[in-house]
Amino acid sequence: MFKEKLENVRSKSPLIHSITNYVTVGDCANILLACGGSPIMADEPEEAEEITSICGGLNINIGTLNRHTIPAMLTAGKKANQCGHPVLLDPVGAGASSLRTDTARGLLEAIDFTVIRGNISEIKSLAAGSGTTKGVDADVADAVREQTLEQAVAFAKEFSSQSHSIIAITGAIDIVAGPEKAYVIRNGHPMMSRITGSGCMLSAMMTAYLAANPDDPLGAAAAAVCAMGLCGETAYSRLAEGEGNASYRNRLIDAVYHLDGDTLEEGANYEMR
Amino acid sequence: MFKEKLENVRSKSPLIHSITNYVTVGDCANILLACGGSPIMADEPEEAEEITSICGGLNINIGTLNRHTIPAMLTAGKKANQCGHPVLLDPVGAGASSLRTDTARGLLEAIDFTVIRGNISEIKSLAAGSGTTKGVDADVADAVREQTLEQAVAFAKEFSSQSHSIIAITGAIDIVAGPEKAYVIRNGHPMMSRITGSGCMLSAMMTAYLAANPDDPLGAAAAAVCAMGLCGETAYSRLAEGEGNASYRNRLIDAVYHLDGDTLEEGANYEMR
Amino acid sequence: MFKEKLENVRSKSPLIHSITNYVTVGDCANILLACGGSPIMADEPEEAEEITSICGGLNINIGTLNRHTIPAMLTAGKKANQCGHPVLLDPVGAGASSLRTDTARGLLEAIDFTVIRGNISEIKSLAAGSGTTKGVDADVADAVREQTLEQAVAFAKEFSSQSHSIIAITGAIDIVAGPEKAYVIRNGHPMMSRITGSGCMLSAMMTAYLAANPDDPLGAAAAAVCAMGLCGETAYSRLAEGEGNASYRNRLIDAVYHLDGDTLEEGANYEMR
Repeated sequence: MFKEKLENVRSKSPLIHSITNYVTVGDCANILLACGGSPIMADEPEEAEEITSICGGLNINIGTLNRHTIPAMLTAGKKANQCGHPVLLDPVGAGASSLRTDTARGLLEAIDFTVIRGNISEIKSLAAGSGTTKGVDADVADAVREQTLEQAVAFAKEFSSQSHSIIAITGAIDIVAGPEKAYVIRNGHPMMSRITGSGCMLSAMMTAYLAANPDDPLGAAAAAVCAMGLCGETAYSRLAEGEGNASYRNRLIDAVYHLDGDTLEEGANYEMR
Repeated sequence: MFKEKLENVRSKSPLIHSITNYVTVGDCANILLACGGSPIMADEPEEAEEITSICGGLNINIGTLNRHTIPAMLTAGKKANQCGHPVLLDPVGAGASSLRTDTARGLLEAIDFTVIRGNISEIKSLAAGSGTTKGVDADVADAVREQTLEQAVAFAKEFSSQSHSIIAITGAIDIVAGPEKAYVIRNGHPMMSRITGSGCMLSAMMTAYLAANPDDPLGAAAAAVCAMGLCGETAYSRLAEGEGNASYRNRLIDAVYHLDGDTLEEGANYEMR
Repeated sequence: MFKEKLENVRSKSPLIHSITNYVTVGDCANILLACGGSPIMADEPEEAEEITSICGGLNINIGTLNRHTIPAMLTAGKKANQCGHPVLLDPVGAGASSLRTDTARGLLEAIDFTVIRGNISEIKSLAAGSGTTKGVDADVADAVREQTLEQAVAFAKEFSSQSHSIIAITGAIDIVAGPEKAYVIRNGHPMMSRITGSGCMLSAMMTAYLAANPDDPLGAAAAAVCAMGLCGETAYSRLAEGEGNASYRNRLIDAVYHLDGDTLEEGANYEMR
């Protein structure tokens, strides 16, 4: 099944509009090209809506959030909703500043997101704000581990139900949850946290998977997480002596470039909960 | 002849001011250093004019166009004209939004560009707007191929004559045209389209070639296209097993770093039309 | 001693807030991760103060300076001062435009910087503005060489005394000076000047060293300069045939990733003046 998801990205080559931070934007563009999609970046409010309308999906990332760009996020998001295009929110740093937390919540109110993808702390910051999962802050430990997994899965499903979005929580163990079922994914490598942008890149690539697989967004999101994690494993295995995180970043994108459907199907390590 | 063009860049080491997008800006800086030039990026209207005046050339790129930056493009462009420095326009995404198309046309009216460099669609968007080549949109196929080459060359010459700029159209076959003669270039590799920024990098490097070779801008622009294409071929031949587009990007810049005049002279694959 | 400085960065993993340019920002994030720190970038005035308050150090870099960002630099800098966090100024391009020179001087007046790190021309531009070292412009040659070293060291100490900041001047020979003593450092490789961002990356990494070693900022700054220079040497020695500046950039960050305390201690090449 994941095989087909990947192959749809390569055959349809969706154009993805990213309104994203300037730290990892080049890597997001290159991973979109690596997976078979096509990138365009545009964050000026005057053109964001128009650019979104010619794309297949929209990726909104609030890293290096900037007051000037927020209206672009809002108009582009609403336009994508009107067009029926998938929209992903990556709430980078939600919880770290009021501006980010409030902006992410404002976006959630104004836009129907197909997927919200972040780490557990970011997702918890958003969920707490929505008023329904106040207690989760105390209950779900910051890192998703085997001991806290069941609780984290329940939290993700509940927040999915309440937000009407797929919730993708990535970390040592990844969770991709709809209201009733969740993928628990054990691909990836710890070195992915030693480069900047592995989360941002996943969000960009996931938007391409969503755009190319409109019939099964939950499966598409999970396939993207498995693909990224598997490539994180491959990249690590390919590191030569003396190579560190800069080379790892390149080898990760390179692995995405070469990943094929059969390898993904075989290497994807997940269970349903 | 191209040999001398390259060597002039290395010996004169021109300082190039780029007002460019934030997706590929780091790669543009590194390719300028690789070819022998020196980069400075500055897009704040308050300083753009002053920075341009200490540089040898100006590269204006409208990817991730931003309302705040347009005045910087205008004042820097006019200043470069006053100083007699070459100015290049890279109309990234012209045709994809009104803001980009209108801004590119506004820049064309206000500034004398030495070169306009883009893909065929971007160049057509600009030419159509100028009112003289309306029919070209239908006539010139989006990709320049052997069958459409003659038409595309005629279009490029006509637009050059009308805009008083050298027109550089890059793609599978590249055209660098003045009003009366054109270089048709067959260097390059398809993998150049699988990384972000190969066009932006070429524009930055071409500006250095223009600045170092003021007596022959047409030849300088063509030499830069050949140099980039040749390095695209070299980079591909140097890819190791498992390497994809991220490594290709590095190997492309590396190839520019090592390219010498004799290799360029020998490897340049062009004809005059 | 430098060994301990490096190991403190790895064990404390300080979170560093960078308000920096968009050319080299991704490399700054990756080198912070490589050395053992953790990066966050935020330049919106509304959140800069809040982000700084959760970090261990602040790195202000005026490359691609932008009118909108200056208030963020000011409020974040003042907040870091209140919190007792180290603050570093990298005056990229001071002297190249009035906006940059004036902004850097304004920051110096409003904020107590732990370190000011730049090349000799940038530092001279700042010092001249402060009114005490007017003659230095003529006396100190632009490059610090053996013949001008003594003068440059005296200048650095004097400017340190007057600015109440550690002065780090990097170039072929590096100087890290307090009011009374200075490290003269001879690590590094000329190829570091053939990539964009080696200075920006050093500033980011140095901020992590300062944050992790609050008891000895002068030693921490010198250790960071030695670490970067040593990694510049290692990176050069690891270049394979055909590799140029793009690969060098990766190998430099990779070398930082693998550098350990013993290697730094042994490879650091400095004297006190």
